[in-house]
Amino acid sequence: MKRPWQGQVEPSLLKTVPRHDPHNPLCPGATRANGEVNPHYDGTFLFDNDFPALQPDAPNPGPSDHPLFQAEAARGVCKVMCFHPWSDVTLPLMSVPEIRAVVDAWASVIEELGAQYPWVQIFENKGAMMGCSNPHPHCQVWASSFLPDVAQREERSQQAYQSQHGEPLLMEYGRQELLRKERLVLTSEHWLVLVPFWAVWPFQTLLLPRRHVRRLPELTSAERDDLASIMKKLLTKYDNLFETSFPYSMGWHGAPTGSEAGANWDHWQLHAHYYPPLLRSATVRKFMVGYEMLAQAQRDLTPEQMSSSYSGLSRVLVAVATA
Amino acid sequence: MKRPWQGQVEPSLLKTVPRHDPHNPLCPGATRANGEVNPHYDGTFLFDNDFPALQPDAPNPGPSDHPLFQAEAARGVCKVMCFHPWSDVTLPLMSVPEIRAVVDAWASVIEELGAQYPWVQIFENKGAMMGCSNPHPHCQVWASSFLPDVAQREERSQQAYQSQHGEPLLMEYGRQELLRKERLVLTSEHWLVLVPFWAVWPFQTLLLPRRHVRRLPELTSAERDDLASIMKKLLTKYDNLFETSFPYSMGWHGAPTGSEAGANWDHWQLHAHYYPPLLRSATVRKFMVGYEMLAQAQRDLTPEQMSSSYSGLSRVLVAVATA
Ligand SMILES: O=P(O)(O)O[C@H]1O[C@H](CO)[C@@H](O)[C@H](O)[C@H]1O
Ligand SMILES: O=P(O)(O)O[C@H]1O[C@H](CO)[C@@H](O)[C@H](O)[C@H]1O
Repeated sequence: MKRPWQGQVEPSLLKTVPRHDPHNPLCPGATRANGEVNPHYDGTFLFDNDFPALQPDAPNPGPSDHPLFQAEAARGVCKVMCFHPWSDVTLPLMSVPEIRAVVDAWASVIEELGAQYPWVQIFENKGAMMGCSNPHPHCQVWASSFLPDVAQREERSQQAYQSQHGEPLLMEYGRQELLRKERLVLTSEHWLVLVPFWAVWPFQTLLLPRRHVRRLPELTSAERDDLASIMKKLLTKYDNLFETSFPYSMGWHGAPTGSEAGANWDHWQLHAHYYPPLLRSATVRKFMVGYEMLAQAQRDLTPEQMSSSYSGLSRVLVAVATA
Repeated sequence: MKRPWQGQVEPSLLKTVPRHDPHNPLCPGATRANGEVNPHYDGTFLFDNDFPALQPDAPNPGPSDHPLFQAEAARGVCKVMCFHPWSDVTLPLMSVPEIRAVVDAWASVIEELGAQYPWVQIFENKGAMMGCSNPHPHCQVWASSFLPDVAQREERSQQAYQSQHGEPLLMEYGRQELLRKERLVLTSEHWLVLVPFWAVWPFQTLLLPRRHVRRLPELTSAERDDLASIMKKLLTKYDNLFETSFPYSMGWHGAPTGSEAGANWDHWQLHAHYYPPLLRSATVRKFMVGYEMLAQAQRDLTPEQMSSSYSGLSRVLVAVATA
């Protein structure tokens, strides 16, 4: 953190976004790339991504002739979920009931796509710095015919911990963090937010329910309201950290779904990861490059330094709110 | 690749860099952050990083009280290697004998630091987009008291392949790519450059010797000359691809060193990875975000599409050369 920085400076993040733009394919009433017209939605809105990375009918690559050249079809669907009819809001600027509607829509899409697919990945890329190509508040949902790499790794670790210690890894982990109080960011009746012991992204956090919950649809109404409220608090702290609409990628992980949904997945605990890229200010980011790509993650801040940066910072930023 | 792009556009990459800047700590004769004055070097120049991420005397974190909270001291040294006394050149603009001097300096630093440390990671972050904070042509060398994550993964895969098939994974892999000819970028008497079957970064390549070589210092003089020449060709193709000084992170992987250097590491084959970020043009990059961070790498181009983009493109770009 002491290195002089002469490197890349990001373009300023606060652009004025019009509340409604009839040419933005995510807005109510707009025409999308495939010619479909969006409804005049006034809450959340889920539709098929017009440029899907996964398709239900991906062709089979055929048998392999060599152990080093193995390929398999990756099948699935990609959806987009708008959080709100307005383009000039973000989750932290939405009301708690509006965020609660997003939580309900997340739970429904896991149920709907999870009926067929073993993994349904909900993720939000927020901000141009995180590859988001449209400022309208939205997330994506990619359901796949296979367990992706990260899901496989989480499955192995949680499975191994359960069989050695007889309880879910993340239940014991959350309890320990509550006792140690070194990396906590927020706690509420039903939820915890902490900087995980293994954090590598600056200001990375983990959002966990206190109760043992395997998947989003299992959340009670009280847990959903409380989730909306703690998300608003966390994202407001993020916006305040560098006084900017804070970029990140986030996503939910829960027990696998699909035809094996009925198996024993008690070693899984639902959680969300937040990976923010900003390191020193609204315009200087952490680059995960050279050493990180070729050897190992290198962190510029310890998790304990990160979590202490969050104290205070709970006022809603008016500058961001009205930008 | 068909998605409309309204996302982040990178600042233009071609800035005029002065050949010599007495305030740039990487230039000959300049004073560095610690007060030391650089020699008036006229070839390569190796020195200790003034802001090292690894230090030889990192304190021990002490015994852990819980299986989920395990930490170990990461010890090591970080060095910087300038490739050339001028700030306004890059490897592809240097002469083959000048690049050969860099290859020799790489081999020496592996010998020097490898006498003590089990892993010596040479890597170059090129371009502001890849977190490079100084335009002077240079790479870094981080030696560590442990095998980093990626090294451990390569160790496991190469070890497993050797014990199943009785020969090094990357020897068989290189031979297969030479036969299949679908992903080759360049071949020379002693070297191959190909887009690996598993490539995820756009225009990612793997540089491999044809002979079984475990570490850089084992390269013969003829192999080193040929390496300098094929690197110049590869990096010139990169510059030509989007007519810009092409950003990337690259690094060398070879058999572990240190006190275990004498063990049997015959399953290792020396290689370099190139990871370039540009996807569609000199200003639009691939973002490894959301789905990639939370689930699995998603590639916008197939390796076969990437490798066919390289044909031609071997003229040295005068615009870049004189920028
Ligand atoms: O050492 P530098 O050039 O200051 O820093 C660069 O390379 C490091 C090693 O890959 C990264 O950790 C930094 O994020 C990056 O900006
Ligand atoms: O789907 P989008 O918003 O066009 O694209 C964004 O998210 C994808 C999934 O994380 C990434 O693969 C792309 O690199 C990124 O730009």
